[in-house]
Amino acid sequence: MSNFNKQTGSLNEKAGISSPEITNAPAIIQIKNKRRQLPSSEELISGILSGNRTALSRAITLIESTNPEHTEKANQIIKECLPGANKSIRIGITGVPGVGKSTFIEAFGKYLTSLGKKVAVLAVDPSSSLSHGSILGDKTRMEELVKDENAFIRPSASGETLGGVARKTRESIILCEAAGFDTIIIETVGVGQSETAVHSMVDFFLLLKISGAGDELQGIKRGIMEMADAIVINKADGDNIKKAALAKIEFSKALHLFPPKKSAWQPIVTTCSSVTKEGVSQIWKTISDYFDTTNETGYFQEKRTGQNQFWMMETINEELKSNFYNQPEIISLLEKTQKAVQNNEISPFAAAQLLLEKYFKA
Amino acid sequence: MSNFNKQTGSLNEKAGISSPEITNAPAIIQIKNKRRQLPSSEELISGILSGNRTALSRAITLIESTNPEHTEKANQIIKECLPGANKSIRIGITGVPGVGKSTFIEAFGKYLTSLGKKVAVLAVDPSSSLSHGSILGDKTRMEELVKDENAFIRPSASGETLGGVARKTRESIILCEAAGFDTIIIETVGVGQSETAVHSMVDFFLLLKISGAGDELQGIKRGIMEMADAIVINKADGDNIKKAALAKIEFSKALHLFPPKKSAWQPIVTTCSSVTKEGVSQIWKTISDYFDTTNETGYFQEKRTGQNQFWMMETINEELKSNFYNQPEIISLLEKTQKAVQNNEISPFAAAQLLLEKYFKA
Repeated sequence: MSNFNKQTGSLNEKAGISSPEITNAPAIIQIKNKRRQLPSSEELISGILSGNRTALSRAITLIESTNPEHTEKANQIIKECLPGANKSIRIGITGVPGVGKSTFIEAFGKYLTSLGKKVAVLAVDPSSSLSHGSILGDKTRMEELVKDENAFIRPSASGETLGGVARKTRESIILCEAAGFDTIIIETVGVGQSETAVHSMVDFFLLLKISGAGDELQGIKRGIMEMADAIVINKADGDNIKKAALAKIEFSKALHLFPPKKSAWQPIVTTCSSVTKEGVSQIWKTISDYFDTTNETGYFQEKRTGQNQFWMMETINEELKSNFYNQPEIISLLEKTQKAVQNNEISPFAAAQLLLEKYFKA
Repeated sequence: MSNFNKQTGSLNEKAGISSPEITNAPAIIQIKNKRRQLPSSEELISGILSGNRTALSRAITLIESTNPEHTEKANQIIKECLPGANKSIRIGITGVPGVGKSTFIEAFGKYLTSLGKKVAVLAVDPSSSLSHGSILGDKTRMEELVKDENAFIRPSASGETLGGVARKTRESIILCEAAGFDTIIIETVGVGQSETAVHSMVDFFLLLKISGAGDELQGIKRGIMEMADAIVINKADGDNIKKAALAKIEFSKALHLFPPKKSAWQPIVTTCSSVTKEGVSQIWKTISDYFDTTNETGYFQEKRTGQNQFWMMETINEELKSNFYNQPEIISLLEKTQKAVQNNEISPFAAAQLLLEKYFKA
């Protein structure tokens, strides 16, 4: 396998110029083998269950892999981790770039570990494969939390579709919980549909904002306010304190326009500074209150059960569509049919029927 | 076929008591045959294209039928009507019960026919099969419009699913347009998901409201305000005039909180009385403005094309799901799998995979 003499790199471009001989081939083989050698599923499982972060990290890599062998291994690990999962509170955090998500999570996460909690931070960012990790990619923005042995930070899985990334994150949550992390933070950037995906995998959804030029609500993304269990006005320090207080009032008013939530929870608006740490403990108190209240009413468990059902159905529905639209016969017929619909030669329903007949015959 | 002597009705319960002889059997056969005899597709098509409302009505009955023969006939008629369709403006009207939808549509429709327009009124109300036509069922509430020869009123198709009702309504629109109706009104009741369905089949979406106890926005259904191209405060007459004006201000303010629409249309808020007819002509002027503006920008056609694509895809996706969930193997496995997910014995994704494998193998 390791044919060191057959080098095809750019350094070998000029034929006739010999490469320098490799001096310690056996050592290199040993290192390479060690790198390639993956621990067994059993090793990873027992590592995760004993709280080993390296094992956890490696297992998540398996979840993220597109190699079918890895997928099988990952499924086995998830299955074994399931009984240890679910014992956590899952918090979704969203906010557009510039709102200070990383510094907030650093401050919030450090506060949580100071309380003795074990904090895992995951991300859902379908764009990260293009931008090479726009979110959480730069771990240096969470300098202190990264060094904290009670924290585990994992950048977004790369993947082209939101569905794929969401699935991988959701499976990673299971492993983190099995590894003893009791507070799971799922970060997402306030773009596209990723909030909806994150909202459907967390218990508590937090919208991070900063105070702006006074017209706070203008242009706020549809649906986001509705999903939020809390709105936190970040960067409430220095000259911003007054503006943040005003923004808080405006958001509180706006929230009252929404119909009551199924959880019966009245969303709160609060201010916070990731620099002075003012307001950070209050946010955790709010989330604890939420946890207590919804646990008592049974809503907490009900929501999780609903989320599991949702993800099962969602996976099925996506797979059915993907199977349909990837059939060669459908691909070739679809374009023609779409044009016919556009030219009013066939109704959308008759067109659908035509395609479906083709599909189910094949 | 017509075996008149073999009567099985309740009047025949007592054996041994003979039924009175039928006096004019041939005449009855003739009447029955005439009733049963459906015009041919060709007759219906030429009837529709010449604007015959009876032909239109009978063809819609075919669309609504669950008899496969009727469906085939309906599809043929729709196909032939398509070239004559699409030359209309389609207006969706929603509002909760009590807001005065019927009287508003009567006043608005009569105004339109007075301008020489031909108005068709259809409805989307998935609940009507249970309530036996809660919407438009009582045509007496539109006494004048019913008698107007330039109007065509059709209650909601009955059907158990919103998807089914929406599909039938959407196909009926095609026939109405082919019959020369240039203004199509689709009424829906402000409950459930029916507004979303109606919104995706009309050009202009109108939300009907009445002024309430001051807190106008409280409890307004999520998403509805966003969809509205116009909000009309109805019943702005007598003691209500002042309250309606206040409601108008409040709604106008709230609309400014939403991000601009893709159509670049700024939704308007207006008041109206279906009794005094005050404001009715203004509503038509607004819709005409919308039509002119979006026609110029090309958005009008773009939206319709998008709607056609949407309905084609939607039909395919629904059919794929329906096929999956109705497989006997899936039905029997699904419940078991859902329980396993609920008990954390299997992850939602692994469960989905299990079901999909079963399905695609069969």
